[in-house]
Amino acid sequence: MKVFFVTKNRGKLKEAEVILSSYGIEVKMLAVEKEEIQSYNLEEIALHALRRIDFQDAPFFVEDAGLFIEALNGFPGPYSSYVYKTIGCRGILKLLEGIDNRKAYFLSVVALKIPSTGKVEVFKGKIDGFIADKMQGEKGFGFDPIFMPDGYKRTFAEMSVEEKNRYSHRGKALRKMGEWIVKNLR
Amino acid sequence: MKVFFVTKNRGKLKEAEVILSSYGIEVKMLAVEKEEIQSYNLEEIALHALRRIDFQDAPFFVEDAGLFIEALNGFPGPYSSYVYKTIGCRGILKLLEGIDNRKAYFLSVVALKIPSTGKVEVFKGKIDGFIADKMQGEKGFGFDPIFMPDGYKRTFAEMSVEEKNRYSHRGKALRKMGEWIVKNLR
Repeated sequence: MKVFFVTKNRGKLKEAEVILSSYGIEVKMLAVEKEEIQSYNLEEIALHALRRIDFQDAPFFVEDAGLFIEALNGFPGPYSSYVYKTIGCRGILKLLEGIDNRKAYFLSVVALKIPSTGKVEVFKGKIDGFIADKMQGEKGFGFDPIFMPDGYKRTFAEMSVEEKNRYSHRGKALRKMGEWIVKNLR
Repeated sequence: MKVFFVTKNRGKLKEAEVILSSYGIEVKMLAVEKEEIQSYNLEEIALHALRRIDFQDAPFFVEDAGLFIEALNGFPGPYSSYVYKTIGCRGILKLLEGIDNRKAYFLSVVALKIPSTGKVEVFKGKIDGFIADKMQGEKGFGFDPIFMPDGYKRTFAEMSVEEKNRYSHRGKALRKMGEWIVKNLR
Protein backbone atom coordinates (compact mmCIF):
# COMPACT_ATOMS: atom_id res chain seq x y z
CA MET A 1 0.00 0.00 0.00
CA LYS A 2 1.38 3.37 -1.02
CA VAL A 3 0.14 6.85 -0.08
CA PHE A 4 1.43 10.26 -1.15
CA PHE A 5 2.13 13.06 1.34
CA VAL A 6 1.72 16.55 -0.14
CA THR A 7 4.57 18.35 1.58
CA LYS A 8 7.97 19.87 0.99
CA ASN A 9 8.95 19.54 4.64
CA ARG A 10 11.43 16.66 4.98
CA GLY A 11 11.02 16.67 8.76
CA LYS A 12 7.30 15.97 8.43
CA LEU A 13 7.93 13.36 5.73
CA LYS A 14 10.38 11.52 7.99
CA GLU A 15 7.85 11.47 10.84
CA ALA A 16 5.16 10.10 8.54
CA GLU A 17 7.43 7.39 7.10
CA VAL A 18 8.35 6.10 10.55
CA ILE A 19 4.74 5.96 11.76
CA LEU A 20 3.04 4.58 8.67
CA SER A 21 5.63 1.88 8.02
CA SER A 22 4.29 0.08 11.09
CA TYR A 23 0.93 -0.18 9.29
CA GLY A 24 2.65 -1.56 6.20
CA ILE A 25 2.09 1.74 4.41
CA GLU A 26 4.78 3.28 2.24
CA VAL A 27 4.90 7.11 2.14
CA LYS A 28 6.01 9.04 -0.92
CA MET A 29 6.52 12.78 -1.17
CA LEU A 30 4.17 14.61 -3.54
CA ALA A 31 5.91 17.96 -3.96
CA VAL A 32 3.14 19.93 -5.68
CA GLU A 33 2.06 23.43 -4.69
CA LYS A 34 -0.49 23.56 -1.88
CA GLU A 35 -3.03 26.37 -2.03
CA GLU A 36 -3.31 27.46 1.59
CA ILE A 37 -6.09 29.83 2.57
CA GLN A 38 -5.98 32.23 5.51
CA SER A 39 -8.27 30.86 8.18
CA TYR A 40 -8.42 30.29 11.92
CA ASN A 41 -9.46 26.74 11.21
CA LEU A 42 -6.82 24.14 10.33
CA GLU A 43 -9.42 21.69 8.99
CA GLU A 44 -10.73 24.29 6.56
CA ILE A 45 -7.16 25.00 5.39
CA ALA A 46 -6.42 21.30 4.89
CA LEU A 47 -9.68 20.49 3.07
CA HIS A 48 -9.32 23.50 0.80
CA ALA A 49 -5.76 22.47 -0.12
CA LEU A 50 -6.85 18.90 -0.81
CA ARG A 51 -9.70 19.98 -3.10
CA ARG A 52 -7.34 21.98 -5.28
CA ILE A 53 -4.95 19.10 -6.00
CA ASP A 54 -5.56 17.09 -9.12
CA PHE A 55 -3.86 13.74 -8.55
CA GLN A 56 -5.36 10.39 -9.53
CA ASP A 57 -2.65 7.77 -9.08
CA ALA A 58 -3.09 6.81 -5.43
CA PRO A 59 -4.49 8.02 -2.10
CA PHE A 60 -2.80 11.25 -0.97
CA PHE A 61 -2.95 13.46 2.09
CA VAL A 62 -2.14 16.94 3.29
CA GLU A 63 -1.28 17.83 6.86
CA ASP A 64 -1.60 21.16 8.56
CA ALA A 65 -0.44 21.85 12.07
CA GLY A 66 -0.25 24.79 14.39
CA LEU A 67 0.98 25.77 17.83
CA PHE A 68 -1.75 27.48 19.84
CA ILE A 69 -0.60 29.49 22.87
CA GLU A 70 -3.32 30.29 25.39
CA ALA A 71 -1.90 33.56 26.74
CA LEU A 72 -1.47 34.84 23.15
CA ASN A 73 -5.08 34.12 22.12
CA GLY A 74 -4.06 31.13 20.08
CA PHE A 75 -1.17 32.84 18.28
CA PRO A 76 0.65 31.69 16.13
CA GLY A 77 -2.00 29.04 15.35
CA PRO A 78 -2.53 28.34 11.64
CA TYR A 79 0.27 30.78 10.75
CA SER A 80 2.91 28.92 12.76
CA SER A 81 5.10 28.31 9.74
CA TYR A 82 5.21 32.00 8.74
CA VAL A 83 5.71 33.12 12.34
CA TYR A 84 8.52 30.62 12.76
CA LYS A 85 10.28 31.93 9.65
CA THR A 86 10.03 35.57 10.76
CA ILE A 87 10.24 35.91 14.55
CA GLY A 88 11.11 32.29 15.36
CA CYS A 89 11.32 30.59 18.75
CA ARG A 90 13.05 33.66 20.18
CA GLY A 91 10.09 35.86 19.25
CA ILE A 92 7.64 33.54 21.01
CA LEU A 93 9.83 33.44 24.14
CA LYS A 94 10.00 37.24 24.14
CA LEU A 95 6.22 37.57 23.80
CA LEU A 96 5.83 35.32 26.85
CA GLU A 97 8.39 37.10 29.03
CA GLY A 98 6.84 37.82 32.41
CA ILE A 99 3.73 35.78 31.61
CA ASP A 100 2.98 32.92 34.01
CA ASN A 101 0.49 31.07 31.83
CA ARG A 102 2.67 29.06 29.42
CA LYS A 103 -0.08 26.65 28.34
CA ALA A 104 -0.04 25.68 24.68
CA TYR A 105 -1.07 22.86 22.41
CA PHE A 106 -0.07 21.55 19.05
CA LEU A 107 -2.89 20.52 16.73
CA SER A 108 -2.48 18.48 13.56
CA VAL A 109 -5.12 17.93 10.91
CA VAL A 110 -4.58 15.27 8.26
CA ALA A 111 -6.92 15.17 5.26
CA LEU A 112 -6.76 12.11 3.03
CA LYS A 113 -8.28 11.77 -0.43
CA ILE A 114 -9.03 8.48 -2.16
CA PRO A 115 -9.14 9.37 -5.87
CA SER A 116 -10.82 6.09 -6.90
CA THR A 117 -13.95 6.91 -4.87
CA GLY A 118 -13.54 10.69 -4.49
CA LYS A 119 -13.91 10.30 -0.72
CA VAL A 120 -12.13 12.49 1.82
CA GLU A 121 -11.33 11.55 5.42
CA VAL A 122 -10.06 13.85 8.18
CA PHE A 123 -7.96 12.80 11.18
CA LYS A 124 -6.90 15.02 14.07
CA GLY A 125 -4.31 14.85 16.78
CA LYS A 126 -3.65 17.18 19.69
CA ILE A 127 -0.97 17.36 22.35
CA ASP A 128 -1.24 19.60 25.41
CA GLY A 129 1.86 21.10 26.90
CA PHE A 130 3.59 24.34 27.67
CA ILE A 131 6.19 26.72 26.35
CA ALA A 132 9.61 26.19 27.92
CA ASP A 133 11.54 29.09 29.46
CA LYS A 134 14.27 28.76 26.88
CA MET A 135 15.14 26.87 23.70
CA GLN A 136 16.33 23.33 24.34
CA GLY A 137 17.43 20.62 21.92
CA GLU A 138 18.50 20.39 18.31
CA LYS A 139 16.20 17.75 16.85
CA GLY A 140 12.87 18.16 15.04
CA PHE A 141 11.94 21.45 13.39
CA GLY A 142 9.86 24.58 13.86
CA PHE A 143 8.81 25.32 17.41
CA ASP A 144 9.97 21.93 18.73
CA PRO A 145 12.79 23.50 20.84
CA ILE A 146 10.32 25.46 22.99
CA PHE A 147 7.43 22.98 23.35
CA MET A 148 7.26 20.52 26.26
CA PRO A 149 4.39 18.01 26.38
CA ASP A 150 2.57 17.97 29.73
CA GLY A 151 4.37 15.75 32.20
CA TYR A 152 7.75 15.99 30.48
CA LYS A 153 10.84 17.98 31.23
CA ARG A 154 12.15 17.72 27.71
CA THR A 155 11.12 19.58 24.58
CA PHE A 156 10.19 17.89 21.30
CA ALA A 157 13.63 18.95 20.04
CA GLU A 158 15.25 16.80 22.72
CA MET A 159 13.44 13.68 21.54
CA SER A 160 14.23 11.23 18.73
CA VAL A 161 11.74 11.06 15.85
CA GLU A 162 10.38 7.82 17.31
CA GLU A 163 9.85 9.32 20.76
CA LYS A 164 8.33 12.54 19.49
CA ASN A 165 5.96 10.54 17.28
CA ARG A 166 4.71 8.64 20.32
CA TYR A 167 3.28 11.82 21.86
CA SER A 168 2.99 14.31 19.08
CA HIS A 169 -0.13 15.78 17.51
CA ARG A 170 1.03 14.64 14.07
CA GLY A 171 1.86 11.17 15.40
CA LYS A 172 -1.68 10.83 16.75
CA ALA A 173 -3.35 12.05 13.57
CA LEU A 174 -1.17 9.85 11.36
CA ARG A 175 -1.83 6.75 13.46
CA LYS A 176 -5.57 7.37 13.15
CA MET A 177 -5.08 7.55 9.40
CA GLY A 178 -2.96 4.38 9.43
CA GLU A 179 -5.68 2.48 11.28
CA TRP A 180 -8.35 3.76 8.94
CA ILE A 181 -6.36 2.74 5.86
CA VAL A 182 -5.72 -0.74 7.20
CA LYS A 183 -9.46 -1.21 7.87
CA ASN A 184 -10.86 0.43 4.77
CA LEU A 185 -8.41 0.28 1.91
CA ARG A 186 -7.56 -3.40 1.67
CA MET B 1 -19.52 56.39 -11.29
CA LYS B 2 -19.90 53.71 -8.67
CA VAL B 3 -17.39 51.07 -7.55
CA PHE B 4 -17.75 48.30 -4.99
CA PHE B 5 -15.18 47.67 -2.26
CA VAL B 6 -15.00 44.03 -1.14
CA THR B 7 -14.46 44.50 2.58
CA LYS B 8 -16.13 44.14 5.95
CA ASN B 9 -13.80 46.66 7.58
CA ARG B 10 -15.70 49.93 8.10
CA GLY B 11 -12.48 51.81 8.82
CA LYS B 12 -11.12 50.90 5.39
CA LEU B 13 -14.46 51.72 3.76
CA LYS B 14 -14.47 55.18 5.35
CA GLU B 15 -10.94 55.87 4.08
CA ALA B 16 -11.89 54.81 0.56
CA GLU B 17 -15.09 56.93 0.55
CA VAL B 18 -13.21 60.07 1.54
CA ILE B 19 -10.49 59.60 -1.08
CA LEU B 20 -12.56 58.47 -4.03
CA SER B 21 -15.28 61.09 -3.57
CA SER B 22 -12.75 63.68 -4.76
CA TYR B 23 -12.60 61.79 -8.08
CA GLY B 24 -16.40 61.80 -8.31
CA ILE B 25 -16.45 58.09 -7.48
CA GLU B 26 -19.01 56.64 -5.11
CA VAL B 27 -17.89 53.66 -3.00
CA LYS B 28 -20.26 50.90 -1.90
CA MET B 29 -19.46 48.04 0.42
CA LEU B 30 -19.60 44.56 -1.13
CA ALA B 31 -19.70 42.32 1.94
CA VAL B 32 -19.04 38.94 0.32
CA GLU B 33 -16.54 36.37 1.59
CA LYS B 34 -12.98 36.90 0.39
CA GLU B 35 -10.89 33.79 -0.19
CA GLU B 36 -7.48 34.78 1.16
CA ILE B 37 -4.54 32.52 0.47
CA GLN B 38 -1.45 32.25 2.65
CA SER B 39 1.38 33.96 0.81
CA TYR B 40 4.28 36.33 1.41
CA ASN B 41 3.04 38.38 -1.50
CA LEU B 42 0.15 40.82 -1.02
CA GLU B 43 -0.43 41.14 -4.77
CA GLU B 44 -0.86 37.38 -5.10
CA ILE B 45 -3.35 37.41 -2.20
CA ALA B 46 -5.36 40.27 -3.71
CA LEU B 47 -5.44 38.82 -7.23
CA HIS B 48 -6.46 35.41 -5.98
CA ALA B 49 -9.31 36.91 -3.93
CA LEU B 50 -10.50 38.95 -6.90
CA ARG B 51 -10.57 35.94 -9.22
CA ARG B 52 -12.83 34.02 -6.87
CA ILE B 53 -15.55 36.68 -6.69
CA ASP B 54 -18.41 36.39 -9.12
CA PHE B 55 -19.92 39.86 -9.38
CA GLN B 56 -21.06 41.45 -12.64
CA ASP B 57 -22.92 44.65 -11.76
CA ALA B 58 -20.09 47.19 -11.63
CA PRO B 59 -16.30 47.52 -11.17
CA PHE B 60 -15.20 46.18 -7.80
CA PHE B 61 -11.94 46.04 -5.89
CA VAL B 62 -10.22 44.24 -3.05
CA GLU B 63 -7.48 45.72 -0.91
CA ASP B 64 -4.83 43.94 1.09
CA ALA B 65 -2.40 45.67 3.35
CA GLY B 66 0.35 44.70 5.71
CA LEU B 67 2.83 46.16 8.16
CA PHE B 68 6.37 44.97 7.45
CA ILE B 69 8.89 45.40 10.27
CA GLU B 70 12.53 45.21 9.23
CA ALA B 71 13.98 43.86 12.48
CA LEU B 72 11.32 41.11 12.50
CA ASN B 73 12.08 39.90 8.95
CA GLY B 74 8.91 41.49 7.62
CA PHE B 75 6.61 40.18 10.34
CA PRO B 76 3.59 40.54 10.59
CA GLY B 77 3.38 41.31 6.84
CA PRO B 78 0.45 39.69 5.03
CA TYR B 79 -0.83 38.25 8.32
CA SER B 80 -1.16 41.65 10.00
CA SER B 81 -4.88 41.26 10.60
CA TYR B 82 -4.50 37.90 12.37
CA VAL B 83 -1.50 39.09 14.36
CA TYR B 84 -3.38 42.22 15.40
CA LYS B 85 -6.30 40.12 16.65
CA THR B 86 -4.09 37.80 18.68
CA ILE B 87 -1.04 39.62 20.08
CA GLY B 88 -2.04 43.17 19.09
CA CYS B 89 0.01 46.35 19.27
CA ARG B 90 1.34 45.31 22.68
CA GLY B 91 2.78 42.11 21.23
CA ILE B 92 4.64 44.03 18.53
CA LEU B 93 6.03 46.50 21.09
CA LYS B 94 7.20 43.60 23.24
CA LEU B 95 8.92 41.90 20.30
CA LEU B 96 10.81 45.14 19.62
CA GLU B 97 11.88 45.78 23.22
CA GLY B 98 15.59 46.49 23.30
CA ILE B 99 15.83 46.59 19.50
CA ASP B 100 17.18 49.85 18.04
CA ASN B 101 16.04 49.30 14.46
CA ARG B 102 12.36 50.32 14.48
CA LYS B 103 12.08 50.70 10.69
CA ALA B 104 8.80 49.53 9.20
CA TYR B 105 6.55 50.16 6.25
CA PHE B 106 2.91 49.74 5.41
CA LEU B 107 2.12 48.36 1.97
CA SER B 108 -1.30 48.40 0.33
CA VAL B 109 -2.28 46.53 -2.81
CA VAL B 110 -5.56 47.37 -4.53
CA ALA B 111 -6.83 45.05 -7.27
CA LEU B 112 -9.72 46.31 -9.41
CA LYS B 113 -11.84 44.21 -11.75
CA ILE B 114 -13.96 45.60 -14.58
CA PRO B 115 -16.58 42.90 -15.21
CA SER B 116 -17.67 44.34 -18.58
CA THR B 117 -14.20 43.74 -20.08
CA GLY B 118 -12.85 41.14 -17.63
CA LYS B 119 -9.77 43.32 -17.11
CA VAL B 120 -7.89 43.56 -13.82
CA GLU B 121 -5.70 46.48 -12.69
CA VAL B 122 -3.36 46.58 -9.70
CA PHE B 123 -2.35 49.70 -7.74
CA LYS B 124 0.18 49.86 -4.91
CA GLY B 125 0.99 52.33 -2.19
CA LYS B 126 3.78 52.27 0.39
CA ILE B 127 4.62 54.44 3.36
CA ASP B 128 7.95 54.22 5.20
CA GLY B 129 8.10 54.91 8.88
CA PHE B 130 8.94 53.37 12.22
CA ILE B 131 7.37 51.69 15.21
CA ALA B 132 6.76 54.09 18.10
CA ASP B 133 8.00 53.30 21.60
CA LYS B 134 4.45 53.09 22.90
CA MET B 135 0.85 53.16 21.71
CA GLN B 136 -0.41 56.66 20.94
CA GLY B 137 -3.80 57.84 19.68
CA GLU B 138 -7.31 56.47 19.45
CA LYS B 139 -8.21 56.98 15.79
CA GLY B 140 -7.86 54.59 12.87
CA PHE B 141 -7.64 50.84 13.41
CA GLY B 142 -5.20 47.94 13.54
CA PHE B 143 -1.57 48.90 14.09
CA ASP B 144 -2.21 52.64 13.57
CA PRO B 145 -1.40 53.48 17.25
CA ILE B 146 2.20 52.28 16.91
CA PHE B 147 3.10 53.42 13.37
CA MET B 148 4.70 56.82 12.73
CA PRO B 149 5.40 57.86 9.13
CA ASP B 150 8.98 59.07 8.57
CA GLY B 151 9.33 62.72 9.50
CA TYR B 152 6.33 62.75 11.87
CA LYS B 153 6.07 62.61 15.61
CA ARG B 154 2.51 61.39 15.54
CA THR B 155 1.12 57.95 14.86
CA PHE B 156 -1.60 57.21 12.30
CA ALA B 157 -3.98 56.87 15.26
CA GLU B 158 -3.35 60.51 16.15
CA MET B 159 -4.43 61.72 12.69
CA SER B 160 -7.89 62.39 11.25
CA VAL B 161 -9.00 60.16 8.38
CA GLU B 162 -8.22 63.01 5.97
CA GLU B 163 -4.70 63.50 7.30
CA LYS B 164 -3.89 59.78 7.45
CA ASN B 165 -5.15 59.37 3.87
CA ARG B 166 -2.73 62.04 2.71
CA TYR B 167 0.29 59.90 3.67
CA SER B 168 -0.98 56.40 4.01
CA HIS B 169 -0.18 53.36 1.88
CA ARG B 170 -3.91 52.82 1.23
CA GLY B 171 -4.41 56.49 0.40
CA LYS B 172 -1.66 56.30 -2.22
CA ALA B 173 -2.98 53.10 -3.80
CA LEU B 174 -6.58 54.37 -3.84
CA ARG B 175 -5.59 57.67 -5.44
CA LYS B 176 -3.76 55.77 -8.17
CA MET B 177 -6.95 53.80 -8.75
CA GLY B 178 -9.03 56.99 -8.73
CA GLU B 179 -6.83 58.54 -11.40
CA TRP B 180 -6.95 55.40 -13.49
CA ILE B 181 -10.75 55.21 -13.31
CA VAL B 182 -11.15 58.88 -14.28
CA LYS B 183 -8.91 58.32 -17.33
CA ASN B 184 -10.16 54.94 -18.44
CA LEU B 185 -13.72 54.35 -17.33
CA ARG B 186 -15.62 57.34 -18.65
